Parts: sequence; C-alpha cells; structure tokens
Amino acid sequence: MLTLYSFGPAANSLKPLLALYEKGIAFTPRFIDPRKFEHHEEWFKKINPRGQVPALDHDGHIITESTVICEYLEDAFPDAPRLRPADPVATAEMRVWTKWVDEYFCWCVSTIGWERMIGPMARALSDSEFEEQLERIPVPEQKVKWRNARNGFQKEVLDEEMRKIGVSVDRLENRLSQSPWLAGEDYTLADICNFAIANGMQHGFAEIVNRDATPHLVAWIERINARPAAREMFARSQSEMPSRAPAPTA
Amino acid sequence: MLTLYSFGPAANSLKPLLALYEKGIAFTPRFIDPRKFEHHEEWFKKINPRGQVPALDHDGHIITESTVICEYLEDAFPDAPRLRPADPVATAEMRVWTKWVDEYFCWCVSTIGWERMIGPMARALSDSEFEEQLERIPVPEQKVKWRNARNGFQKEVLDEEMRKIGVSVDRLENRLSQSPWLAGEDYTLADICNFAIANGMQHGFAEIVNRDATPHLVAWIERINARPAAREMFARSQSEMPSRAPAPTA
Repeated sequence: MLTLYSFGPAANSLKPLLALYEKGIAFTPRFIDPRKFEHHEEWFKKINPRGQVPALDHDGHIITESTVICEYLEDAFPDAPRLRPADPVATAEMRVWTKWVDEYFCWCVSTIGWERMIGPMARALSDSEFEEQLERIPVPEQKVKWRNARNGFQKEVLDEEMRKIGVSVDRLENRLSQSPWLAGEDYTLADICNFAIANGMQHGFAEIVNRDATPHLVAWIERINARPAAREMFARSQSEMPSRAPAPTA
Repeated sequence: MLTLYSFGPAANSLKPLLALYEKGIAFTPRFIDPRKFEHHEEWFKKINPRGQVPALDHDGHIITESTVICEYLEDAFPDAPRLRPADPVATAEMRVWTKWVDEYFCWCVSTIGWERMIGPMARALSDSEFEEQLERIPVPEQKVKWRNARNGFQKEVLDEEMRKIGVSVDRLENRLSQSPWLAGEDYTLADICNFAIANGMQHGFAEIVNRDATPHLVAWIERINARPAAREMFARSQSEMPSRAPAPTA
C-alpha cells in the first residue's frame, strides 16, 4: 500500500508526485488542503510530526522530506524506470542539484510565494483565529514565517530573495544551455526537483523567466510539461483534488 | 587516483575523511590551510569554483559538497564496507538525518564557530588586507558571512543560533536514547555527518553537551571516537597536516 500525502502538483509536493507518475508506480493520492490548515491537524501530525507535506506511507513506513522520498522511490522500486543515473559521477551531479533546490532555490521562491499567497490568506483570519492556527504548527521556524507573512515580509528581505531568484535563474539557464538535462544526458531527479520550483515562473516571474532572457530554461520547462507523466499528473490531480485555489509554494 | 581536498578532520571536511577511513579506501589527503585562505586561491577555484572544501578528485572527476561526496563513495566503491543501510526505509531515515545536518544543525554551530574563530582571524587583518581577501571569495553569501564575522555577529543572531543548537542537541539526545545509531541498528553516514558537527561540542558547548544533560549523545561521540577508523583518521591527519590551529567549522 502506497499513499502520498501532498498539496498537489506544485512546489515540494510535485517532486514525489511526478516521480511516481514517471516511474509508473500505482499509489493512492491523498490531497491535503492548505486553506483548511489540514497539515496542522492532529491526525496528520500523527503521520508527520512536523506537520509538513509531502509524506509517503509505504506499508505503514512513513517517509518524509520531498527529496528523500524521491530517492526512496529509486531504492524501493528498482525495477521501475530509473530517475537516478547509473553512473556514480552523474548521480553526484544530480544530488548537487537536488541539494541546491532544497538549500537555496526553493527558499527564495517560497518567500515570494508566501508574500503573495499566504500573506492574504493569513490576513483574512481574525487575530484570535490566526493565533489559534499558529498554536497548532509544530515547527517554530514555520510559526515565525507565518507571522512574517501575515505582517508582510520586510522590503529588504524581499529584495534579497529576488536577488537570489535571479542567481538561481541564471544558474539554471547557464546549465541548460550546455546540456539537455541538469545532470547531463539523462532526465533525472535533478530535473524533477528543480521543475517543482521553476514550473510556473514563466508566469509568476515572467519579467526574468521568458523566451528572450532564458530560452533554454523555458524550453526545458515546456519539455517537462509535455512529458506523458507530467500531463497525466496534472490531468489526474485536477480531477482528483478537491476544488481549490493553487497550493502555496513550499 | 583519489585526492581529497579538505581542512582536516573537523566540520564538513570530516565527513568524507572519516567515510574514506571507515571504508578503507586508499586516497591522497590534500590539506588546505584556511589561515592562508588557500581555498580562495585561483588554483583551488579551478577545482571547485565555489572555493569550498571538501572536494574529491576521482580520476579527474570533481565531486563537491560533503554529503554528496559521502554518498558518492557508497556508489563508486560498492565493494568497500557499507555506510548506507541495505534497507530503503533505513536509508531514507539516514538521509533525513544527513539533510538535517546540512540544512539546520551545521549552520547554527557554524555561526558560533565563526564568531569565535573566524572573527578574530578577520580582525587580525588590516582593512585593505581584508577587502583583498574578500574579493577572492566567489560565493556572495560567504562574503557577507565574513563581513559579519569580522564585525561580530549581532547578539540576536547569536541568541537565535544558540536556541537552534539547543534544539539540535535535544533532537540528537532524544534519538540516541532510543537506538544505538541515528538511523537505527547500523552505523551509517547519518552518524558520520552528525558527528562531524557534534564532535568537540562536549568541550566547546560543555554547558549543554555533557554527561549529565546528554548522556546518550556524549556516549555516542565517545563511541565514534573510539572506532579504529576515527583513531586512524585523527592520528594520520595530525602527522600529515601542516602544523596549525584547529580548522574553522563549516
């Protein structure tokens, strides 16, 4: 039995979702509604005490952290199509890219996403409703982030994150001008994990991600969107997810 | 041909060093002297453009990022003693721990290490010497960190890092009261990567890491120090390293 708890096909949740579709592994999707703060409910904190998605339940074993789940699928389903190179050097290159998403790229994009989406959501709550929701968040740093989002992030913070987004976009464009995929000749978890954050930037950050400024990055985003697994993931999630606004980033 | 560029057996450099000794893989250690800012020299930036250690040269392939190097050694030397569990669930648990070091534990300890060691080192330089050294650092965030260390980190920053160190120490103690090693029954990269940061805290952070407050953590630190591979690593590095002060953390 394989169940994936996720916000749906965006941000960190997209990583294991797309990996599952690419590998053709049957699973039960369980969509968590961030607007209802479902990931902070007691039943879900019994699954992941950190109150975060994605989380994978494989025969009762809970695997957390999006990138760790992706590597787990490689280890646990060795007969499914590989998303990790056979060559150790290429695998190391893949991991430098997945690590970079987790430590740099996802955070700067996430702050802007929180400013744009979580901020209004948090301000729609009354003070007491907000404090009540905050009480249920198990990770202290996450509480701080919610409070900052509700107040609006400081301009210097947003400026610094936009600088980092620029660095990130340049890094991706530069690499993709040299090879079709981030870890070289093969489509791997490096692509899936970066796509999870980069997809949609051609709309949300159109001033820096566009056909003129970043042709290779845009072509790569389109190439992944056109893959049968990605099309199936978006189509099926659309029909299976309870109707709601787009999921927040990270 | 296998060459490891490192600061020696402390912090991130310790991870692949100890892994190599545990696996019994022959390699050439190349110690970089941080007091001479050798990692920011042009010859080294040709090896790692980010100007950071550790870096592994395996037959001309350069592998960077301490945790990625550790996993690479597992992939590239499958016949050497394993430091990654055979079971995928335990491997995922191992990776949650190595990821946590890289994203949380190493940073809070590192800031205090920089305050204590890099700060005085940076203040010993004249303004122009300092700016000259800064010029050669390729990573913008690293330049900022050097400047903050020279000025002394703000008290609020140090207080917040000490809070996170407390959280980290509690998390390690709690886990090690439940199982002998972090990922369960086997000694793995989870232990090596956390030991890289935790070793020495029984001295540098003796007020929170000690036999009364954290008996399991202290016993685990001692157990790893007593391993033949760790003893060999410390003894050989001592004799091979150019005589100098302890390496800075991270």
